[in-house]
Amino acid sequence: MGTRLGELVERFGGQLMGDANLEVTGIAPLTDAGVSHISFLSNSKLRAQALQTAAAALIVSPADDEFIAAGYSGARIVTPNPYVYFAKAAQYFYSLTAIVPPAGVHPTAFIGEGAQIAATAHIGPKVVVEAGAVIGEHAVIDAGCYIGREAVIGEGTHFFANVTFHAYCQIGARGIIHSGAVIGTDGFGFANEKGVYIKIPQTGRVMIGDDVDIGANTTVDRGALADTVIEDGVKLDNLIQIAHNCHIGAHTAMAGCVGMAGSTTVGKYCTFGGAAMINGHITIADHVNVGPSTMIPRSLTEPGTYIGYYPMSRPAEWEKSAVIVRNLAAMRDKVRALEKTIKTLTNQEEK
Amino acid sequence: MGTRLGELVERFGGQLMGDANLEVTGIAPLTDAGVSHISFLSNSKLRAQALQTAAAALIVSPADDEFIAAGYSGARIVTPNPYVYFAKAAQYFYSLTAIVPPAGVHPTAFIGEGAQIAATAHIGPKVVVEAGAVIGEHAVIDAGCYIGREAVIGEGTHFFANVTFHAYCQIGARGIIHSGAVIGTDGFGFANEKGVYIKIPQTGRVMIGDDVDIGANTTVDRGALADTVIEDGVKLDNLIQIAHNCHIGAHTAMAGCVGMAGSTTVGKYCTFGGAAMINGHITIADHVNVGPSTMIPRSLTEPGTYIGYYPMSRPAEWEKSAVIVRNLAAMRDKVRALEKTIKTLTNQEEK
Amino acid sequence: MGTRLGELVERFGGQLMGDANLEVTGIAPLTDAGVSHISFLSNSKLRAQALQTAAAALIVSPADDEFIAAGYSGARIVTPNPYVYFAKAAQYFYSLTAIVPPAGVHPTAFIGEGAQIAATAHIGPKVVVEAGAVIGEHAVIDAGCYIGREAVIGEGTHFFANVTFHAYCQIGARGIIHSGAVIGTDGFGFANEKGVYIKIPQTGRVMIGDDVDIGANTTVDRGALADTVIEDGVKLDNLIQIAHNCHIGAHTAMAGCVGMAGSTTVGKYCTFGGAAMINGHITIADHVNVGPSTMIPRSLTEPGTYIGYYPMSRPAEWEKSAVIVRNLAAMRDKVRALEKTIKTLTNQEEK
Repeated sequence: MGTRLGELVERFGGQLMGDANLEVTGIAPLTDAGVSHISFLSNSKLRAQALQTAAAALIVSPADDEFIAAGYSGARIVTPNPYVYFAKAAQYFYSLTAIVPPAGVHPTAFIGEGAQIAATAHIGPKVVVEAGAVIGEHAVIDAGCYIGREAVIGEGTHFFANVTFHAYCQIGARGIIHSGAVIGTDGFGFANEKGVYIKIPQTGRVMIGDDVDIGANTTVDRGALADTVIEDGVKLDNLIQIAHNCHIGAHTAMAGCVGMAGSTTVGKYCTFGGAAMINGHITIADHVNVGPSTMIPRSLTEPGTYIGYYPMSRPAEWEKSAVIVRNLAAMRDKVRALEKTIKTLTNQEEK
Repeated sequence: MGTRLGELVERFGGQLMGDANLEVTGIAPLTDAGVSHISFLSNSKLRAQALQTAAAALIVSPADDEFIAAGYSGARIVTPNPYVYFAKAAQYFYSLTAIVPPAGVHPTAFIGEGAQIAATAHIGPKVVVEAGAVIGEHAVIDAGCYIGREAVIGEGTHFFANVTFHAYCQIGARGIIHSGAVIGTDGFGFANEKGVYIKIPQTGRVMIGDDVDIGANTTVDRGALADTVIEDGVKLDNLIQIAHNCHIGAHTAMAGCVGMAGSTTVGKYCTFGGAAMINGHITIADHVNVGPSTMIPRSLTEPGTYIGYYPMSRPAEWEKSAVIVRNLAAMRDKVRALEKTIKTLTNQEEK
Repeated sequence: MGTRLGELVERFGGQLMGDANLEVTGIAPLTDAGVSHISFLSNSKLRAQALQTAAAALIVSPADDEFIAAGYSGARIVTPNPYVYFAKAAQYFYSLTAIVPPAGVHPTAFIGEGAQIAATAHIGPKVVVEAGAVIGEHAVIDAGCYIGREAVIGEGTHFFANVTFHAYCQIGARGIIHSGAVIGTDGFGFANEKGVYIKIPQTGRVMIGDDVDIGANTTVDRGALADTVIEDGVKLDNLIQIAHNCHIGAHTAMAGCVGMAGSTTVGKYCTFGGAAMINGHITIADHVNVGPSTMIPRSLTEPGTYIGYYPMSRPAEWEKSAVIVRNLAAMRDKVRALEKTIKTLTNQEEK
């Protein structure tokens, strides 16, 4: 099962140099591609490697095309961003063989009163949909998922097996929630009376836009009073914690194990490396990039990159440096004292 | 649906200045409250804002009451801790509209032999209760939960959907376990024979007191031989890892992503910021507060606050500082050499 | 229920000094053991304590045996590694009383078309096994697990309740996957077109060897094109994230909360402390040991230990040191300036 190069160009654009009727059966990296594949050159440093590929066709950028054309005899699709073209083509090849879950509710699912399930939606085995929930057209809810009361799932959104999506929360169209994710759990809100915690009811929702992906075992708390908000196009990896009343701007991406404390607003088009930690009650500007294992304690008003983690060493070196780090103020004071003494000495010299 | 101010004062105390028959429909922050709401002033810095609130009534502290009384025409409830009062009132308002799950076992649940389920308990769809488990009065076990063999769930405790609570573990009264949490998984215990790990059976339990909340996707390991213990009133946020044989003292709270290695004892009334990490086989005193992203490598015998994470910077600055941090011993040696040289120079000067 | 000392020695070796027909009912640490127990001395520092144990028998090393023999009247099993012997004996005692789940498919499970389930396997309540999956002899799949299409589960492997194991992934024999773990979720792979993320289909698998343990709520992503691989004997604790296309060498162990970014290869016999973070696209040699809370940014070609986390302090000290850490380049420049000035001064002195 495959497709014609002409079909790809009709769907995803690009300038075809070669036979539109050439069939390709899949897409693969330069070194893995076989003679029935199309491949792609997304990094100009791999130009020489590209000439060696067995692939029947190559996706190349205009900048690389002259070089490739001179040494490669297969077909070419010229497009400004070959990696994006690869992603789109890969999705298309994937769709040709993907097993589409059948429309309808599996007999072992439990559907609460008044839940509205679109005719084209798939509800898998052992799913529980509570009363009044709304599930859109072509949504796919895999086995064992829990959809809370009056929750709303948009068109074409896919929940993998064993997602928990709590009452009144909403997600838009074309989203993906991976297994074990928990959306809409109570935020961590308490008043403290003489040492004893008193729970503050968490009555807000989680409101998720379109085209949002949420990773496996990631948790997103519902708001305390107002809502927790995740805007369109946000991508969250696995094992991320988003606390109550956070707001994540559109097209921001967070890698695995990130934590975000409560009532923080992150801008649009930001990226967060793995295990980055974000303090509560702060605001991060648009287009901020945070490195891995970095703690962001305060608001960031300027776009750009921020990073800070302790450099690893061998234990003996680390132990030495860690002791000094703890007492850096003492070293600074010594340097200051030295500067003063030397100033005195120098003055004496000059006299 | 709402309540009279008099009803609130009867339930939660405080001195009412105003009409006991005034009806309020809910509680909201100063700026969000409408004319049918009661609001609260828990931070004296917001006094001026409080005078602008639309709320029909205000909860205030004795210290703020004179100021508020002078400028605010609504009713007042005077109480030492308005934030605690807010929490209690919010719980009460929440209870007025909350949908109480019906008593009884859902027909799609599976109940093992000899399990004892109180008549007033709710067992939701697709729940599995293994043989010999005991579930107390008014407990609520939502859809998809798994209760292991001979586990014990106390009165009024609430498991949200998809909790896993393993065999022989126990939780007391009025607890909450959020979705995806796993209680009583095997601890990470192995002997090593020539590089190969040999599992040590984990035969202890997890014993949880009353009024304990455990967050979504948090994991608590059962003890190896003795039990893992969580005392009354402990509050654990999401995605926390508690290893085998840990003991957490009463009314301690941990924010999201905290990790606690095995056989560690944490005292009472402690707090841990997000992603704090606690070493194994140590003891933390009562009333210790640990900052976010802070690693605690050794026992802490003194109450108070401890913190330590690398300060974020711009990449160029961080790279410079990280290189120096790794070689701080070299800088210290240079400073020492300078001190020595200067001492010699100064002595020569003095001669 | 117990066993004879002779039975232990027949099963696990060691030289028995005492009555082979002596019955012991269990194994316990030195101080906990009662008169019907066997105990073990795995740390020579506890020799004196061993003499005080109530245990009827002791497992000791050849190095400790002379000392113990002189002062302890019970039976002894002499073996090179008493802790390993303890683990094996504990497993055996555990097996004597463990409740073995019955072979067969629970009536509330759902089994997809063409799934092959061995006659001796146990499939618990509410389990979902998708079409074409293969489950080996004596495998135990506890309640609520999800086994994806054409997944393969090896002989004697045990999934605790509520594991999610996705389509086409494989695990070998004698493995354990703990509750809430998600194996084979999509990797976090996107192309970016003008700020908008475009998903790259993740079509690789997760391939897991024999004797692998995976902790509760741990997530392992499937490969993008090639597979994510976990070799024999690997032990992963709870809440670990393994990204797509990682490769973990045999007999490597990772403690809780570790994160591993994509396309990284970790060698054999490595250990990672809790919350260690491993960068993507790097290679870690065999026999590397990483400390807790340590970020590994680059490949490690040498075996040995690596560590680096910020030392905790009291807040006032940390704030001072953190400010200086951020500006260490300034301090270094001052020290250099001092060195230069002093060199000049010293030269003048010498003239």
